[in-house]
Amino acid sequence: MGYSNASGDTDFRNAIIQMLNFKRGMRLSADEIFITRGSQMAMYLSAQCLLRKGDHVVVENPGYKPAWQAFKSAGAQILPVGVDNEGLIIEDLKLLLENYGSIKAIYITPHHQFPTTVTLSLPRRLELVTLSNKHGFTIIEDDYDNEFHFGQRPILPVSSFENAENFIYIGTMSKIVAPALRLGYLAASRNLIAQVTELRKIIDVQGDNIMAQAVLQLINEGHIKRHLRKATLHYKNKRDFFEKVINQHLSEKVNFHKPEGGLAFWLTPKQETNLSKIAVKLLDKGIQIISPQDFSFDKPINGLRLGYASLNEDQLEYGIKMISSLL
Amino acid sequence: MGYSNASGDTDFRNAIIQMLNFKRGMRLSADEIFITRGSQMAMYLSAQCLLRKGDHVVVENPGYKPAWQAFKSAGAQILPVGVDNEGLIIEDLKLLLENYGSIKAIYITPHHQFPTTVTLSLPRRLELVTLSNKHGFTIIEDDYDNEFHFGQRPILPVSSFENAENFIYIGTMSKIVAPALRLGYLAASRNLIAQVTELRKIIDVQGDNIMAQAVLQLINEGHIKRHLRKATLHYKNKRDFFEKVINQHLSEKVNFHKPEGGLAFWLTPKQETNLSKIAVKLLDKGIQIISPQDFSFDKPINGLRLGYASLNEDQLEYGIKMISSLL
Repeated sequence: MGYSNASGDTDFRNAIIQMLNFKRGMRLSADEIFITRGSQMAMYLSAQCLLRKGDHVVVENPGYKPAWQAFKSAGAQILPVGVDNEGLIIEDLKLLLENYGSIKAIYITPHHQFPTTVTLSLPRRLELVTLSNKHGFTIIEDDYDNEFHFGQRPILPVSSFENAENFIYIGTMSKIVAPALRLGYLAASRNLIAQVTELRKIIDVQGDNIMAQAVLQLINEGHIKRHLRKATLHYKNKRDFFEKVINQHLSEKVNFHKPEGGLAFWLTPKQETNLSKIAVKLLDKGIQIISPQDFSFDKPINGLRLGYASLNEDQLEYGIKMISSLL
Repeated sequence: MGYSNASGDTDFRNAIIQMLNFKRGMRLSADEIFITRGSQMAMYLSAQCLLRKGDHVVVENPGYKPAWQAFKSAGAQILPVGVDNEGLIIEDLKLLLENYGSIKAIYITPHHQFPTTVTLSLPRRLELVTLSNKHGFTIIEDDYDNEFHFGQRPILPVSSFENAENFIYIGTMSKIVAPALRLGYLAASRNLIAQVTELRKIIDVQGDNIMAQAVLQLINEGHIKRHLRKATLHYKNKRDFFEKVINQHLSEKVNFHKPEGGLAFWLTPKQETNLSKIAVKLLDKGIQIISPQDFSFDKPINGLRLGYASLNEDQLEYGIKMISSLL
């Protein structure tokens, strides 16, 4: 119940390392992990310690804006790179490297790209690591929903690649237990973890060690494992149902692919539409969608990210019908 | 259990406002309060939003270094002002104002100054508010242990003064419930609270609303009030016992005054001594004291801050005897 160490409860850190090393192919030791209050704090701390004013940080476009805010708050300049059906477009990244000479970091969500849900292909992963090593930029890998993958085989993080030299790997418990549970982690070099630890003392002294011990108990007693098994099956069925409903009511109006994991679909209307206006109309009917503005770098992007995890089948079908009537 | 607003649970914020307005003489409305993870985060957020690179921030010397770190991390330059038996020396502050032209803020612990435990006198409080209004600097008031005051009458915060124009008032629940409970608050202008809210979203999205609801229940059911009544009496008795023991074993070697509140004594050895060396020797005997380096701006300060709250009578007496044998 007292003051304790800033990098997080030791037992909990060990449990996370075990999980990352055995399930996600990483090779971390105890001083390469740091417990944060969710993935946002992991990004803020990384950004403050890694970046200097004027540094260039490449991001996916469309992408996850709250992360960009963390980089901007450290004085970085954001450079967007497009995303296609294999994920981040490496050729665009190469162009940026040519034009800007050097970049400091790239922020990616390769497992299920936010918001397009695309999984970064293996050839591109390999190329990205090669470029990172050659140019010395850090790969900031946000693996925010690693747990929910429905494909046949697991896809290992870019940070787990044996030749990956500069990475910051970020994960969270928010999607497993509850968003209000602010418990995440970052894995990085000893040196960065040491800097992050000093900064954390200045920001909020320490994390929530009581909560960490509680979650550790859930892990040790097998509850998390059982919950994940049940939840993954539950979400897989829901994803399949959602696909069916989209095919029924929307297939003529949108392009989409069935996501291999994550808790959302990405729909791109076949015709350019003003999705911001549609978002307002949907809200009138009780349906809230993320405004496309929320993940586009400059001009609004013609795409809809629809989360399905917290809705029941009737709600999902109602939502799709309403969207169909407005497109 | 979901995502929620960044400025803190609404009911809990209202409860804190009620307490500050009714017990501490403040006049706050709902958008002038913000719930943080302890007082350190309140200082970090305030510093980041209030200060720009090169701004001058005056601090008490000796004082609370973790706060200084927060100001430094925002690029501020720290200027120390001495403390005597009436608290912060206003004449020294005036000299700084003359020499530096303007200062942006002053950080104070007026209730029970850290580490000297001195209460800032009323004339000096009045003068400080006048200077703040005249020169436009912000008073950052850290009232970290307001609850534990044993004097006859309550002493109201500087921030509660009717003419105080620029203040940031910081409080915490760490001393009431537990240090591991990271729950604090800051009260300031609407404008600053709005900035702090935006920054908080980037740092860690939101606070611990589940914990806030739990503590709110303790407040509403009267448990906190009863606990405080009991704890205050308990600590008052312990303070009186500690005074007795110091008088018995140390009165020839140190100067001290009986603190009116807080959970520590401040002892100044009558002869200059190397307290850092003594701290090391004490640690060998199982006694941990804060090194004088931890609260002095430059050269080590000839003073000992001894916390008594978590020790029993035997431990307190043993500790004082050991210190006496080394001084």
